[in-house]
Amino acid sequence: MSTTAESYLVGLIGDGVAPSLTPPMHEAEADAHGIRYLYRPIDLDLLGRPGGDVGDLLRAGRELGFSAFQITYPCKQLVLEHIDSVSPDAERLGAVNTVLIRDGKFHGENTDFSGFDRALRAGLAGAKLDRVVQLGAGGAGSAVAYALLSSGVRHLSLIDLHAGRVAERVNALRALFPDRIIEAHTSDELPAELAVADGFQQCTPIGMHHHPGSPIDIELLEERHWVSDVVYRPVETALVKAALAKGCRVLDGGQMAVGQAVDAFRLITGVEPDAERMRRHFLGLLAQGL
Amino acid sequence: MSTTAESYLVGLIGDGVAPSLTPPMHEAEADAHGIRYLYRPIDLDLLGRPGGDVGDLLRAGRELGFSAFQITYPCKQLVLEHIDSVSPDAERLGAVNTVLIRDGKFHGENTDFSGFDRALRAGLAGAKLDRVVQLGAGGAGSAVAYALLSSGVRHLSLIDLHAGRVAERVNALRALFPDRIIEAHTSDELPAELAVADGFQQCTPIGMHHHPGSPIDIELLEERHWVSDVVYRPVETALVKAALAKGCRVLDGGQMAVGQAVDAFRLITGVEPDAERMRRHFLGLLAQGL
Repeated sequence: MSTTAESYLVGLIGDGVAPSLTPPMHEAEADAHGIRYLYRPIDLDLLGRPGGDVGDLLRAGRELGFSAFQITYPCKQLVLEHIDSVSPDAERLGAVNTVLIRDGKFHGENTDFSGFDRALRAGLAGAKLDRVVQLGAGGAGSAVAYALLSSGVRHLSLIDLHAGRVAERVNALRALFPDRIIEAHTSDELPAELAVADGFQQCTPIGMHHHPGSPIDIELLEERHWVSDVVYRPVETALVKAALAKGCRVLDGGQMAVGQAVDAFRLITGVEPDAERMRRHFLGLLAQGL
Repeated sequence: MSTTAESYLVGLIGDGVAPSLTPPMHEAEADAHGIRYLYRPIDLDLLGRPGGDVGDLLRAGRELGFSAFQITYPCKQLVLEHIDSVSPDAERLGAVNTVLIRDGKFHGENTDFSGFDRALRAGLAGAKLDRVVQLGAGGAGSAVAYALLSSGVRHLSLIDLHAGRVAERVNALRALFPDRIIEAHTSDELPAELAVADGFQQCTPIGMHHHPGSPIDIELLEERHWVSDVVYRPVETALVKAALAKGCRVLDGGQMAVGQAVDAFRLITGVEPDAERMRRHFLGLLAQGL
């Protein structure tokens, strides 16, 4: 590793980020390129800091030589008021997950969107994206819905336990995609919606180690459906397993997790990462129980 | 490089530190050990920050995942009020150049002292240290005088253009070493003092690229003198060249610069660095004109 080449210092700001796999994913990929790279989790829970302090942390990091930050819950919207410029997609989405520090200025990007978009094109290439049912309209769900509509989904049925949240999200998406059909539905209506949909997108925490189980009745899935899950701990959720068993095309949550890291690494370093190598490393870390 | 092993993030706080060779010295040594290590200069001049802000920078660094800081002019004394514990030598010297962050606490050390002490023992092993003339009683001069007296110098003649500074330093050193002879002298008295001294210690900026020349009349040096210089840009100052030509034993400024880095690296990582390798790398960086 050259001592005079550019080196990269990156931080991940959010609640509960201490065990995140994103820092080791970036560091291992940088090692493979011979790039000096250090990625620190900055866990607001551990610091006892509210999400509103994200601007102070960004400014402190700028003085201390940070190259970039990644931003997660609960700061993806809060960070907007502190940045100097923002990519068109991050602006439309109203959320930033990556802040590049260049010439002392903060530039916001959203690789949750671009990473899912990339994963969707790679993992479900050629799949029919006409009509989709999505469960969950929180932070990850917002980026995913935006990516689905950007990828050509014509009819999106959005279901969330929080009626207010889903209505707000539907209104925001309709404003961005006025030529699509975007509807709020209740859980009761899920079977009927899925019966006429091409795919099912799952964006709730159900399926995680601490929320085991499937978020829907598995009997509703048919072989013609594609199934996409954002949960990646474990990668093989009950939903993913059931969908694979039925012969469905599946996009697991690891694809989005790796996709956002791939896009962030490229933005931060200007170097093209090896997406397959990052995914292998990611799965290796998960297998180690990290 | 393992992605789960401990990694180190270090900052150097001070005026004009952007071109310092200490960060690349640490990074190259860490690479040789397979340790992930990033060392950022935090230049107060470039930030437009006064030295009194060192405490704010330390606290910000602690939140952002820094492992340690090194501290240089003008913060080595200012930092004392912000640290939780301090090594006995740093306390006696009243100056800290290395702050370790452990369990959220700041611990101060002084490797200017320990590094010079190590260089002295290695580079002038067996030399007579009884009576020494030292020119320059500023920041580096204070650590060097303390190290000389700690190493057994019985009679120290301190000379500085600032009469107030030298008197203050003499009083402080007398309090720490009550059994030694420690005297303030003027430049006029230097020839007489050197005539009865074993060695000459140079601690002024004279000899640096931007202050060329020798700080004393070279004719005053005799083969029996040892000569030590703190200037290391260039390593071969006019004084060092003249002393070598006269057959004097010489300790060049690179020895102290590398010695402080060797000791800091060990304190920060707990890993024993290869001092010879660090010196070779340091000389290589100087040869590159860095």
